[in-house]
Amino acid sequence: MTAARLTDLDLAHLLADAAGKAILPYFRQAGLIADNKLAKGFDPVTAADRAAEEAMRALLARHRPEDGIFGEEFGATPGRSGRRWVLDPIDGTRGFLSGTPTWGVLIALCGASGPELGIIDQPYTGERFVGAAGSAWMTGPAGRAALATRSTPALDQAILFTTFPEIGTPDERTRFEAVRDRVRLTRYGMDCYAYALLAAGQIDLVIEAGLNAYDIQAPIAVIEAAGGLVTDWQGGPAHDGGRVLAAANADLHAAALGLLAGSV
Amino acid sequence: MTAARLTDLDLAHLLADAAGKAILPYFRQAGLIADNKLAKGFDPVTAADRAAEEAMRALLARHRPEDGIFGEEFGATPGRSGRRWVLDPIDGTRGFLSGTPTWGVLIALCGASGPELGIIDQPYTGERFVGAAGSAWMTGPAGRAALATRSTPALDQAILFTTFPEIGTPDERTRFEAVRDRVRLTRYGMDCYAYALLAAGQIDLVIEAGLNAYDIQAPIAVIEAAGGLVTDWQGGPAHDGGRVLAAANADLHAAALGLLAGSV
Repeated sequence: MTAARLTDLDLAHLLADAAGKAILPYFRQAGLIADNKLAKGFDPVTAADRAAEEAMRALLARHRPEDGIFGEEFGATPGRSGRRWVLDPIDGTRGFLSGTPTWGVLIALCGASGPELGIIDQPYTGERFVGAAGSAWMTGPAGRAALATRSTPALDQAILFTTFPEIGTPDERTRFEAVRDRVRLTRYGMDCYAYALLAAGQIDLVIEAGLNAYDIQAPIAVIEAAGGLVTDWQGGPAHDGGRVLAAANADLHAAALGLLAGSV
Repeated sequence: MTAARLTDLDLAHLLADAAGKAILPYFRQAGLIADNKLAKGFDPVTAADRAAEEAMRALLARHRPEDGIFGEEFGATPGRSGRRWVLDPIDGTRGFLSGTPTWGVLIALCGASGPELGIIDQPYTGERFVGAAGSAWMTGPAGRAALATRSTPALDQAILFTTFPEIGTPDERTRFEAVRDRVRLTRYGMDCYAYALLAAGQIDLVIEAGLNAYDIQAPIAVIEAAGGLVTDWQGGPAHDGGRVLAAANADLHAAALGLLAGSV
């Protein structure tokens, strides 16, 4: 007798539960030790990050030995199914080190044409944003709610979130500022939480650069299931990372793309 | 027979409870209507803001009719006790409108020499940061914990939070950037939550400009009770607002002050 096979979504929830359990004992604790992965710049990795990815990998080894894994901490593990779990145990390590509840656990399941299922989980606030099979919802302190992006028609009514001015080349920053100068309000420093807010219909645009695949695949799945669009700055697929434009609707996406893609 | 008089601290908790109850039904709801208090710039006021201040004022009228009130929404109400309750029902209205859980209810009790008691409350995450009578603590998802600022010895190890680049004059920005260029990490966009993180020993510096008294009195009470310092950019009292430097300890405060106070 074999146990029933977990659905992908049930397994994704298990991964998120395990990651949160591994991470929370480290959150806001003194003595966090940050390795510097890059000699130049600030890119901390915490024990929490590693413990969470190990916990998720152990579950995948047990429940989906045939699937590949690509994780922020331990890289790529090949599979034989054509499917790959893409994991960022703590997206927003700088926010994590600062004690802000804007980091998240990112979990995506990527098939041949891109991410099919995604979770953005914030275990400290108890919020989980999920996109799967064309449906998107969140659970949190206020209960369960459907996620749907909003219909803001034009840039001058839009709220934009970004990690700029922290990141980006001068050219990228110039293009970003062309959008910033047209929108109603620009806010900074929210890590992956900004994508969750876009899916939840709270904000309208997120623009970032220098992303990795594991930073964006879960947001893509959640936002697309909530009715939004996520592309690179040329309108192409964004699931390999790089420059990302996420928009609540097609009109805003086109308006922002026109400013980001133009020659500087 | 008269009921026992509530302590100031018990009353402050009641105010925070009432404000949170008034605000949460509006948080992340569609159709938030923002008045523009200022013809120029973006300063939304929501129905939530007004409802919360009204709820707090009703409690003060009942329990402390002799005390003055100064609130962000309804201004100054004179008292006869020499004490004044200073209220900002939603500090961080731009964050509130964006759905980020970084806004807060700010409640301070101000005596002759400045704020004596303060609460920074985040009702969505269920976090409450309190400073009173030389003691500081928080309650939240992880339970109750004492608040104590940290002993980071030098700017190059410090984490700085700010609302810049959103606010400030060019001169203020130049001074701010002199500190930003010396610290380990600068993060943006956390509203009053940054002061709570400083009190909690998670970050080291907060630098802001253009504040009002109701923006800073509760943070002063919480941070000072947790061992930190809050002054203006000349080292003088900050409880009337304006330019504010909050630091985890005296060494960091002196180092940042040297850069902020210098001639540009």
